[in-house]
Formats: sequence, C-alpha cells, structure tokens
Amino acid sequence: MVNIAVLGYGTVGSGVVEVINTNGARINQRIGDELNVKYVLDLRDFPGDPIQDKVVHEFDTIVKDPDVQIVVEVMGGIEPAYTFVKRSLQAGKSVATSNKALVAKHGAELLSIARDHNINFLFEASVGGGIPIIRPLNSSMTADEIEEITGILNGTTNYMMSKMFYEGADYNAVLKEAQDNGFAERNPEADVEGYDACRKIAILSSLISGQQVDFEDIYTEGITKITSEDMMYAKEMGMTIKLLASSRRDGDHLHAIVAPHLLGRDHPLFNVNGVFNAIFVHGNVLGDAMFYGSGAGKLPTASAVVSDVVDEAKHLHRNIMTMWKSEKTELLPIEDTKKRYFVRIGGEADVMKAYLESKFGPIEVVEVEGLEGEFGFTTGVLSEGEYKRIAKEFPTIKGMIRIQE
Amino acid sequence: MVNIAVLGYGTVGSGVVEVINTNGARINQRIGDELNVKYVLDLRDFPGDPIQDKVVHEFDTIVKDPDVQIVVEVMGGIEPAYTFVKRSLQAGKSVATSNKALVAKHGAELLSIARDHNINFLFEASVGGGIPIIRPLNSSMTADEIEEITGILNGTTNYMMSKMFYEGADYNAVLKEAQDNGFAERNPEADVEGYDACRKIAILSSLISGQQVDFEDIYTEGITKITSEDMMYAKEMGMTIKLLASSRRDGDHLHAIVAPHLLGRDHPLFNVNGVFNAIFVHGNVLGDAMFYGSGAGKLPTASAVVSDVVDEAKHLHRNIMTMWKSEKTELLPIEDTKKRYFVRIGGEADVMKAYLESKFGPIEVVEVEGLEGEFGFTTGVLSEGEYKRIAKEFPTIKGMIRIQE
Repeated sequence: MVNIAVLGYGTVGSGVVEVINTNGARINQRIGDELNVKYVLDLRDFPGDPIQDKVVHEFDTIVKDPDVQIVVEVMGGIEPAYTFVKRSLQAGKSVATSNKALVAKHGAELLSIARDHNINFLFEASVGGGIPIIRPLNSSMTADEIEEITGILNGTTNYMMSKMFYEGADYNAVLKEAQDNGFAERNPEADVEGYDACRKIAILSSLISGQQVDFEDIYTEGITKITSEDMMYAKEMGMTIKLLASSRRDGDHLHAIVAPHLLGRDHPLFNVNGVFNAIFVHGNVLGDAMFYGSGAGKLPTASAVVSDVVDEAKHLHRNIMTMWKSEKTELLPIEDTKKRYFVRIGGEADVMKAYLESKFGPIEVVEVEGLEGEFGFTTGVLSEGEYKRIAKEFPTIKGMIRIQE
Repeated sequence: MVNIAVLGYGTVGSGVVEVINTNGARINQRIGDELNVKYVLDLRDFPGDPIQDKVVHEFDTIVKDPDVQIVVEVMGGIEPAYTFVKRSLQAGKSVATSNKALVAKHGAELLSIARDHNINFLFEASVGGGIPIIRPLNSSMTADEIEEITGILNGTTNYMMSKMFYEGADYNAVLKEAQDNGFAERNPEADVEGYDACRKIAILSSLISGQQVDFEDIYTEGITKITSEDMMYAKEMGMTIKLLASSRRDGDHLHAIVAPHLLGRDHPLFNVNGVFNAIFVHGNVLGDAMFYGSGAGKLPTASAVVSDVVDEAKHLHRNIMTMWKSEKTELLPIEDTKKRYFVRIGGEADVMKAYLESKFGPIEVVEVEGLEGEFGFTTGVLSEGEYKRIAKEFPTIKGMIRIQE
C-alpha cells in the first residue's frame, strides 16, 4: 500500500480525492500497488464527508508518520506550503504540488532536496492545469534544444480576450461577466495584470534553461489596456489578440515576456479560445508542437496532480525529474527584444504616413471603418528600445501591441 | 559510453545520426553518459559520409557485439525488421523504432520480450511523428480513463483535405500536386485509402485498452470519394472535412474507425491544416486535451526516435513501458456506432423533405448555390446500421459523410 496525505481540502484537494475514488482501480493497476489517502490536512472539519475520519489539523501528524510516502500540496500560496513541502521532502516523502507560486519561487531548492533524498518533487499541475507539459518537457523532448515556449497560460484572460474578439464586447463588461460566471476573481489583478501567467512562464523558462528564472525579472504587461477598438483593428488585419507568456532562447540567454500580442491565423495558438490553455513549443529538430487542454478547473488540475502521484508511487526511491540550478539565468532586457509592432495613432494616415516612415521605416497602414480621427499601422522588425525611442516623438500614439510571428 | 546501432540509413536513419550530432552535448548531459553511434546497418556503402566507417552489412555484427546496448530500427516494413528487433531484444538490447507496421502487428509480443529482459521497446515516432503522444499516454495521463482518442494521423491526406477545403481544388488535381511536391507517394494507396492512419490508431487503441487491437479489424475508409462538392457543403455548414482515425471506449469494448468526417469550428482538430498531425484525447477527469505537431519529416521523426533512445539510455536495465496483452480487444461492429450523418442526394429538397423525415426522423436541409438537382441534409443521431437500412430506400443518395461531435 502507498499512503498519501493531502494538504488542503479545497477545490483541487477534494478533486484529488475524487479522482482517486473514481479511477482507483485503474490507478492501482498502473502503480502495481494500492493507493490510499491516509490523511487530509485542513483547518476545518468535514462532518458527513467520506474523508471526515482522515482529517487532521496538525501537519506534524503527517510528517512524523513513516507510513506516509507521498504528500500532495494543494493549499496554494507560499506559506505554510513552503515549510510543509520542505519538511516533507526532508523527511523522505515525495511531494506533488499544483502550487505555481511555490514552484516559481522555491523550485530549484525543492528539486535539489528531492534529489538529495532520492525522492521526487513533481508539479505538472502548476502550469497549464491538466495539460501534460512539464513531463513532456522533462522526458519527451529530450532530443531537442527548446528554442521557444509560448503559452496561453491563463484561462480567465483568454476567456475575456475571446469574448472581446468574437462578440466585440468592452473590457469592463467582459470582466464583469467573467466575475459573474466565476471565471474571474472579485479582485482580478493576478489574472488581468499577467501575474499568474508570469509565474507559469518563469517555471517553464527555468526548466528549459536549466537555471532559475525569477518571475520578478520577467517583463509583464496585462490586458487592462486592451480595448474593443484594438480588437477591431486586429480583425481588420485577420489577426487576434491574446495574452501570451513567452520565452525564447538567444544564445545562452533568454528573452521572456508576458504581454498581449497580435497573432495571425496561421499560428497554432490563434484558435485557442475560452478558458482553454495551450502551450506552443519550438524545438531545433522537432520543429513546432503544441499542447492544448483545460488550464484550470477542479478535475483537470486534480488529474495532473494524481498523474504526478502515480509517477512518484512508481518511483518511490528513484529521482526522475530534471533539476534546474539555483543560479539565475540572465534575461535579456526587454529593450533588446526584436519584434514588429502595431501602433494606434491619432491623425490622418495620408498626411502622416511619409513622416512616420521617415522615422519607423516602411509601415503598413490599417484603417477601420467607423474609427475616425485615428488609424493604425504595423512597423517592420525593430528592437523594443528603438521603437520606444522613436515613439516618443509622436505624442498622438494611443497604444502599441506587439506582433507574435 | 552508451553504444547504439542504427538499422537503416534512409531518411529517418540519417536524421537520427544528424540529431545526435547536432544536439549531442545536450543529449549526453540528459543521459549522464556519452551516446555513441557504433554501427549503421545498410545494404549500401556511403563513401564520403562521416558514418562511412560505421557501416556494416551484416546484422550479426550488431547483435553479437555486447557493447551495443540500444538498437534503433528505422528500416520500415515487417521483415527483416521484425526478426532484427526480436533478436536484438532477446540479446538484451533495448530497441527504439519508428516502424508503425511492426508495432501494430507485433507490438504485444515485442513489449513482452522487452519486459522479460528488463529492457525497453519504445516507439514514440510510430504515431504522430515528432508529436509526443505515446509517452504522455504511458506516463502523463495515468490518473484518467481515456474515453476517446481521435487523430489526424496522416499528413499527406490532411494536406490534400486542407487544399480541397481552402482552395476548392479537385481531388485528382490535389493528389497530383501532393505527388509533385513529394508529400504523396507515386502509389498513394497507403495514405489515401487510410491504411497508414489505421495502423497508427490500432497502436493507440492497443495502448489505451491494454489489449491487442488488430488493424485488420478496424473499419477503414479513405478519402478517395471526397469531392470538391462535398467541401462546398461543408463550408455552407461552417464545417470542414478531415480524415479522422478514432477510438472510443464503450464499456469494455472499443469503437474504432478510420474515415473522413465533418468537423465543426469548435472542435480542436478543425484548424489542423497542411501536413500537420494532431491527436485529440478525452479523459474522464482530464477532459479534452490535444497534441499538435509535425506528423512526419526527417528531423521531427528522428527527434522522437532519439527521445526514446535517451529514455532507454537512462533506463538501461529497467522496463518503463506499459504493456498491452496479446489477447484481442473486441471492437464493436461499425453498424452499432451512433452518429449524425450528412447525406447528399439527387432531387429537390422541398419535394423530398417530408418523405425523408418520415424515414430518417428530423433532418436539416443544406443547399449550396450552384449545385443543381441535388441537396444535402444532416440526420439526427442514428446507429450506422439504421442509417444503412434506411439509405437503401433512396437510390439517388450520392454519398454520406459521418459527423464528428
């Protein structure tokens, strides 16, 4: 029998118990042993719930019980999750977590403790919910240099962007609707400002570079400035706007960014709509690949957590996860990133085009019927530093959106 | 040092050598040892090629060399591949193969020999080329019951279907163009008749059911009867037509089919175009997921083969692949499959609709401007047996295409 303890009986924690109950026979067959939930740690009691007898309020009960081989951390947040996970690993118990904040901040250290104890620290559910991405990067794409990972990693903002694109809805109306439907929090900052996506791309960046990428170092811009007019321009160009979290290799360094981007119809991420997530990966020999699925939700997230538990149960005394080192990967300054830009500007295109081209180089003008006194244009490839330097000379610029190639 | 031998120096074989040369440093780091191509087996010599000194013409040289730990079989076809792979495994050498015909026919036996010898028989490249799908099914989606796998598993036919859909081109013209571009063989039967996709879905079906699914038992219908008129109807309905290979669980049994299907815009496979492949998976707790990428091509396929080699080098004396048993899974007869159908029929809709509905139940009529003397309609959900029984009464039916929900 393999005994596990679940830390936190919220949405994901109860999902983990539900998945194990639903698919237990099949899971046991895959492990070759019986998986048993021995404890559930929560401050609350759950009278009447089938797990009521397993509820404990003291973490010590779990960490001191030598029968517990795997700890599932689904509490979220840094503390007490960090302390509990660290103590579990130090006690020789493998840990599976869905906690992106914890992995982004302390992943290198926790992976290293797991390796020293010949156990595992796995976190498939921390990025992309139910989508298998951490394990494929760790054990499938091992013949490649991963040159780019670009993801739609936040379901809330993707739901909002999709609504704005397909229904022409306004940002505030869409946010309110998302809140009413339970897709967005009352305080939506973590989603709409890009903080959630930023932690996830920090984890993926650390994995592909083999060194720590601090989320604080990643340039992060949310979707709060995207308007229905921006979507009209996007449609006119046959493109859409998505909040992308992206990491590109440039020699030994990485360019990493979280920001809204314009995407063309041919990009595999173009059609990822609603609350779905997807992760595009480019390998130097594999070429393009994409992984798509439910980026959040009780059961999809629990499915990923339990797949980690299965892997840990099959490898109780064998470390299987690639480490990343605690030394930091140097991120290149955002000013050095080269892209094309879409710019909205007040004025008349035929009057201003020649002067704009004298500064930006060749541009393509985009005009939308019904939008008076302004127009849009796309630039050629420029570094972001160059763009900003030139843009300063044009006080009527209303906004800029980067173009993803 | 981990020594490997490559059987066959054709497109994929030379790709494997190229991938190892290109990414060798990174690959060795992942293995924690040096990977060395010791032999290349081919009937030909390759004077001037960097591997010329490694070429051998006798398989015995390889199988009798105790230094060879991993054999890469990329010859294709059943013989002599089957004999060479079996002898390699019996000699305690792990095998990585891209050979779908071999895996579909002898997978159960070869997996069993590998397990008996505590080595590995891996075949990531046999389905979906560079797309990681075998390993995710084996080690990521382990918390789920996989209820459906539906794939676009053949790049040639997907290229043709995409051209017919987006350019209104005729089947024969598109086939000729695909042949001229090297996307289709001079004898295109294996692709256009669905035989290639059939072997691949047989492998996936065996994996998810844990028992042998014989490709000969899978109902297989190619794309040769799809016309530009069919595509006009599809467009009118806001759908597209794709050659799908699909396996759905129904209790302990499976429904498996390879056939052209109509797909709506909301289906994740709708936008998989050109030579790309994609595999849609539905798990009972995971929900929907999709894996997308290059389904063929020298380097993507070689990337998948080398990822298997890396896994085998990391697990030289430890079997890691889930088996499937040689007992056959019972496939349900195609007549029992329930779907909606799109039917093209000669005649006038307003005259015939009431009588059609008296037989088929409620239908939705589809008419396309420019197509005279015929119309289309979609039925409600019927078993295929029922559909066929009713359709017999309508001699002017020109064709039927299944609808994928």
